[in-house]
Amino acid sequence: MIIKGKNVCRETIYSSNNIKRIIVKKSFNDDVIDYMKNNHIKYEIVEDKSFNELYKDSQGIVVELLSYNYYSLDDVLKDVSNDSMCLILDSIEDPQNFGNIIRSFEAFGGSFIIIPKNRSCEVNETVMKVSTGAYNYVKIVQVPNLVNAIKKLKENGFWIMGTDMKGETLYDEVRVDMPIALVIGSEGFGMSRLVKENCDYLLKVPMKGKINSLNASITAAICISNIVSRRKKY
Amino acid sequence: MIIKGKNVCRETIYSSNNIKRIIVKKSFNDDVIDYMKNNHIKYEIVEDKSFNELYKDSQGIVVELLSYNYYSLDDVLKDVSNDSMCLILDSIEDPQNFGNIIRSFEAFGGSFIIIPKNRSCEVNETVMKVSTGAYNYVKIVQVPNLVNAIKKLKENGFWIMGTDMKGETLYDEVRVDMPIALVIGSEGFGMSRLVKENCDYLLKVPMKGKINSLNASITAAICISNIVSRRKKY
Repeated sequence: MIIKGKNVCRETIYSSNNIKRIIVKKSFNDDVIDYMKNNHIKYEIVEDKSFNELYKDSQGIVVELLSYNYYSLDDVLKDVSNDSMCLILDSIEDPQNFGNIIRSFEAFGGSFIIIPKNRSCEVNETVMKVSTGAYNYVKIVQVPNLVNAIKKLKENGFWIMGTDMKGETLYDEVRVDMPIALVIGSEGFGMSRLVKENCDYLLKVPMKGKINSLNASITAAICISNIVSRRKKY
Repeated sequence: MIIKGKNVCRETIYSSNNIKRIIVKKSFNDDVIDYMKNNHIKYEIVEDKSFNELYKDSQGIVVELLSYNYYSLDDVLKDVSNDSMCLILDSIEDPQNFGNIIRSFEAFGGSFIIIPKNRSCEVNETVMKVSTGAYNYVKIVQVPNLVNAIKKLKENGFWIMGTDMKGETLYDEVRVDMPIALVIGSEGFGMSRLVKENCDYLLKVPMKGKINSLNASITAAICISNIVSRRKKY
């Protein structure tokens, strides 16, 4: 996997354990070069002309990654507190949405995101780039079965809050003083039946227009920001 | 302008005054056909093979539009109440963001959106499609000068609330019991200096991650939903 944007490359160099190679254009000039020198991080320099031919749409630096190292559920369940917030994505398929969800979730201090192994967008180059590097600071867990993961989250004190147009609890009135796992359904079909049945609450974002649909990444951001706002922990 | 998604075509047929032609694939079968028959709306039928060649990536129906008819500021300033909420986009360039902003704003019952004539994405096919047809239910105003528009909004009782990483007012604590014009800055550079100087409040969405940046359409949705949530008008 090759990532190209300058900002996302920079964040990846600052924080990833997954780097295979870093390639820099000869004329490239940026703080991250000093950072790599000071921290003895190896990088390759390529003449401008060859670089431009090899890496179109990049900004003078590219990072080649090993594939994303997903976390296990056991890894992320070690520190659960009443302020814990995690996301379950069932099953987001659009990399723009997935990347934007990671970006918002990181900004609001979320801890981990669970995705299913099948029928879901993986952490790929587009997701990494759209997340503007935030994927480095959020733990992403891939599980074979979301319902089993939900059961394990419940055993660890999490309350499972689905989002559903027909939900009976208002998203801005539900209790937030406990560990929360927020479930965002797929773009086309919402949550799957079994996941929905395993939710403790079904949250509704009330709407008053005529179209009344929200993009999945927007629904996620609205609910995440509302939880954080009412916990008043900033 | 040709729009292609089935949902956006349907919403456009239900509500637009701007339609030039409607073209339907012979085998296309949908409620909207009955709607057009019942309402004496003319449409053209094209054989499946020719249709598929002419309109790739469509879903059996396309609508050809005259260009978007922008509203004037005078049009939209007729009904101002303490619950009024409008958006000023200074200067959103990405059609995905613009479309998503329209979609969220419509869902939360916003009334109109102001964009500048220069350095801004216009209401084009992509914007219409991403808005999932919501552009039909939101009045979009194009103005030559945002600062003059802001002055006029103020004369009409609006309070101007910019969004800025360095703002001093928390977005979830600002007063909301007055007409609000929320300003969203451009993806790369935020609000322009003059617009910022003309804001009554600069709102901050507090973040606690490491990257701490939000997509412009996400910032808009978070602020819009928070205003509506605290007005408790649903």
